[in-house]
Amino acid sequence: MTEIQNGWYLAAWSEEVGRTLTQRWIAGNPVCFYRLSDGTPVAIEDRCPHRRYPLTLGRLDGDVLECNYHGYRFDGTGRCVGVAEQRDTPRAQVLRYRLVERHGAVWIWPGDPSAADESQLPDLSWLDSEQWTGFHGVLPLKARHLLLVENLLDLSHETFLHPTTIGNRAVAATPIEVSTTDRVVSFTRHMVGIEAPPFYVHSMGLTSPVDRWQDGDFYPPGVFILNIRLAPTGTSEPEGYHMKVLYGLTPSVEGECHDFYAVSRDFKLDDADLTQYQHKQQLAVMREDVDALEAQELMVATSRGGAPESSIRSDLAALRARRMLERMRAAEAAAR
Amino acid sequence: MTEIQNGWYLAAWSEEVGRTLTQRWIAGNPVCFYRLSDGTPVAIEDRCPHRRYPLTLGRLDGDVLECNYHGYRFDGTGRCVGVAEQRDTPRAQVLRYRLVERHGAVWIWPGDPSAADESQLPDLSWLDSEQWTGFHGVLPLKARHLLLVENLLDLSHETFLHPTTIGNRAVAATPIEVSTTDRVVSFTRHMVGIEAPPFYVHSMGLTSPVDRWQDGDFYPPGVFILNIRLAPTGTSEPEGYHMKVLYGLTPSVEGECHDFYAVSRDFKLDDADLTQYQHKQQLAVMREDVDALEAQELMVATSRGGAPESSIRSDLAALRARRMLERMRAAEAAAR
Amino acid sequence: MTEIQNGWYLAAWSEEVGRTLTQRWIAGNPVCFYRLSDGTPVAIEDRCPHRRYPLTLGRLDGDVLECNYHGYRFDGTGRCVGVAEQRDTPRAQVLRYRLVERHGAVWIWPGDPSAADESQLPDLSWLDSEQWTGFHGVLPLKARHLLLVENLLDLSHETFLHPTTIGNRAVAATPIEVSTTDRVVSFTRHMVGIEAPPFYVHSMGLTSPVDRWQDGDFYPPGVFILNIRLAPTGTSEPEGYHMKVLYGLTPSVEGECHDFYAVSRDFKLDDADLTQYQHKQQLAVMREDVDALEAQELMVATSRGGAPESSIRSDLAALRARRMLERMRAAEAAAR
Repeated sequence: MTEIQNGWYLAAWSEEVGRTLTQRWIAGNPVCFYRLSDGTPVAIEDRCPHRRYPLTLGRLDGDVLECNYHGYRFDGTGRCVGVAEQRDTPRAQVLRYRLVERHGAVWIWPGDPSAADESQLPDLSWLDSEQWTGFHGVLPLKARHLLLVENLLDLSHETFLHPTTIGNRAVAATPIEVSTTDRVVSFTRHMVGIEAPPFYVHSMGLTSPVDRWQDGDFYPPGVFILNIRLAPTGTSEPEGYHMKVLYGLTPSVEGECHDFYAVSRDFKLDDADLTQYQHKQQLAVMREDVDALEAQELMVATSRGGAPESSIRSDLAALRARRMLERMRAAEAAAR
Repeated sequence: MTEIQNGWYLAAWSEEVGRTLTQRWIAGNPVCFYRLSDGTPVAIEDRCPHRRYPLTLGRLDGDVLECNYHGYRFDGTGRCVGVAEQRDTPRAQVLRYRLVERHGAVWIWPGDPSAADESQLPDLSWLDSEQWTGFHGVLPLKARHLLLVENLLDLSHETFLHPTTIGNRAVAATPIEVSTTDRVVSFTRHMVGIEAPPFYVHSMGLTSPVDRWQDGDFYPPGVFILNIRLAPTGTSEPEGYHMKVLYGLTPSVEGECHDFYAVSRDFKLDDADLTQYQHKQQLAVMREDVDALEAQELMVATSRGGAPESSIRSDLAALRARRMLERMRAAEAAAR
Repeated sequence: MTEIQNGWYLAAWSEEVGRTLTQRWIAGNPVCFYRLSDGTPVAIEDRCPHRRYPLTLGRLDGDVLECNYHGYRFDGTGRCVGVAEQRDTPRAQVLRYRLVERHGAVWIWPGDPSAADESQLPDLSWLDSEQWTGFHGVLPLKARHLLLVENLLDLSHETFLHPTTIGNRAVAATPIEVSTTDRVVSFTRHMVGIEAPPFYVHSMGLTSPVDRWQDGDFYPPGVFILNIRLAPTGTSEPEGYHMKVLYGLTPSVEGECHDFYAVSRDFKLDDADLTQYQHKQQLAVMREDVDALEAQELMVATSRGGAPESSIRSDLAALRARRMLERMRAAEAAAR
């Protein structure tokens, strides 16, 4: 299945892109990432137009990238500016992708650059705000993008997959409210008077009962932002402890994804031990998800007909996201 | 190639099915096996109808199986009886397979349960009779089901693949008689005045020359029973030593099988050393077959046209079995 | 993609073929190689016509090959001469390939034997001439045959992939002359007054500046001969040091090749240390090529449309070779 090309995907954390040529597959495309000497990030198709040799195996000569198979040389726009040692300057152009770098993350638009619309990128300014602290990273996931989307848009799974960290019975037991715009699927879950899960007890030092808010926004095809707030029961929301989790859901190759994450908090900003604790817990949670989704992927990939799919109210946000992705995919297929 | 679904396949030895959810692929289907608290074995499709998550990763709550992704709960008939922590009880049904448990083996009918006909299962009562003793197990085989069928229906291969255990020149040198009914392909090979192969010399303490009978019955798609009798030459058959070998030929995933075996004898019932000796030898023989069939599978899978297939008289039973399987497969394809 | 069948491919070095049955895949076909007792090399399809079991797993009984599954026996022409222990002698014939053995190499024609034309094999008599010495071998390559052809027909890559051994700037900087006949694509590159690359400095003891000739002849589908001459600048070519490199470009399975090589020199014939040095360097060069071509293969295999291919003058020989191979392939497809 061809992945959606016209949309922003998280491609890399800023520190992953530098003067070393780096390959990462994005939505089915091999991409070569690097920075120009002025720091501008560049992403080009990782196939030399000469003989499709990976440009990542080449070298940077100032701002010119030289292919290491036969010496084709490209400037930062992807235009061929000569062939090393030879007189020819063929009219060749390597596909260059639109990038946006904001708040420590590099975003890519794999499709038509002229359609790239920066306004579609949600506000992520907390990522490098002094009011927030946290950590980030990326895990490989051998499951199709849609399974990760649906995982995040139905957090009732926390009750079952993550019972020792962030999930407890209250999550699945509390219905969500769903709202949708043209570009965003949102849900909110407001748990009242519940026991705080271990991760939050440790992070925030709260005593149960607490109130817990989960507010999720999915910007198709690949951005999910979760706002988590906890507070002693009865406190109004704005006074609670606040965490923001960004997930970048980026298809890599057929049936696989990059699972980018950034976890931020607005409290105990200087507590490095807490950052370390949260990072360890986050990775444990994500590995539970990776194991689950990879097992699910095999069942989805091998499914032939069989029983009709069953859905319940807690699937509403995920189903809307699925339909939005289907529409985007159909529109791209129609345009080809 | 779609495997035959309407037929009995050996799914598990009774002790393999218990209160732990266990996955096994049967004829292209992922199946979750377990027992209800009253001991009844259950087999359901290992895909939750909610989001196709493997049910084997869930847990048993009494006789209710709860999916560990979002809490769908199923009773022993596969009917959804609720979703943990949630109010919805969706009308969902997981596919449940017909099982029969007899004499220590669990048999599955992957196809239409209403077509399941227990009378098609041959008599296997010796498996737990006090007149017989033996051992059983299962090996994985990375070769298509048909290659295993043909291996067992042409035992002339014992001469070449198993010369140090059960085969000698007499096997290939002795023609078979073949008979066929609607449901069974049978052959018999009666070797007279031959040298006893090492396995039988050790097992039975016979002195050559001996007479040896091999009587095989194949019940398509997946049951093969071999009756082996040896006796001093001139003795009438009923007085000979008798062994029965059951093979369960169960397709798993594309191009692979489960190779179930149960080897029984009606002599030296209390001789545990002999059981151990025979088990070790049986595994050695089966590993020779596994190596051979996996090498053959590669050649069959990559074959394009080439020389026409050649057959001789000793192939008669295998060819009839092949045609019977082709008819069953064609009938199922026509019914879809 | 079906490989070209009607053409000579290097199948083995003579010492690789003996009385041990040996399997090698050639242009998509599994081939069983052995020698008759009089030393004649034989190549037959490695599938018994009975049940497609690999004949390589069988055994030689004099000049008769006996299949180890059910005892089919074949003479040196591939004709079935009986079945061990059985009375039948089926009319079966295993596909036998045309072979030519010359100068220490065994060549195979996988296609129609009646079309095999020995005159298409170029003169390789230096391989076992007393005027030459050298070494040979074979490496596996997980890249399609065409990539290896194009690699060898555009040696400008030496400048970039092999800068520490045989390549320097002069190679890419010097244009080639290309000529073509019905059956051969030839190029010549004459470098004048250049620095000698390290491999040649060590091999020949030359002092820069030198003149260097690279004359390549490609005989589609699978033979490439490179004549390398170096001499002090100003010397006429015939007095130079001369090396001949034969490459056998033999497709094995889909997307993979055998990369045969034989490197010969007409100087320092008794210098075993030099042979060892050159062999080590040759393998280092070839491993650089293997790494490059395997990386390129992934990009070619996953490429969908994308930027149009760009070519320059140094591609001329490779482009002609590509078209010649396309014509051969199309002719075979039309004939089927």
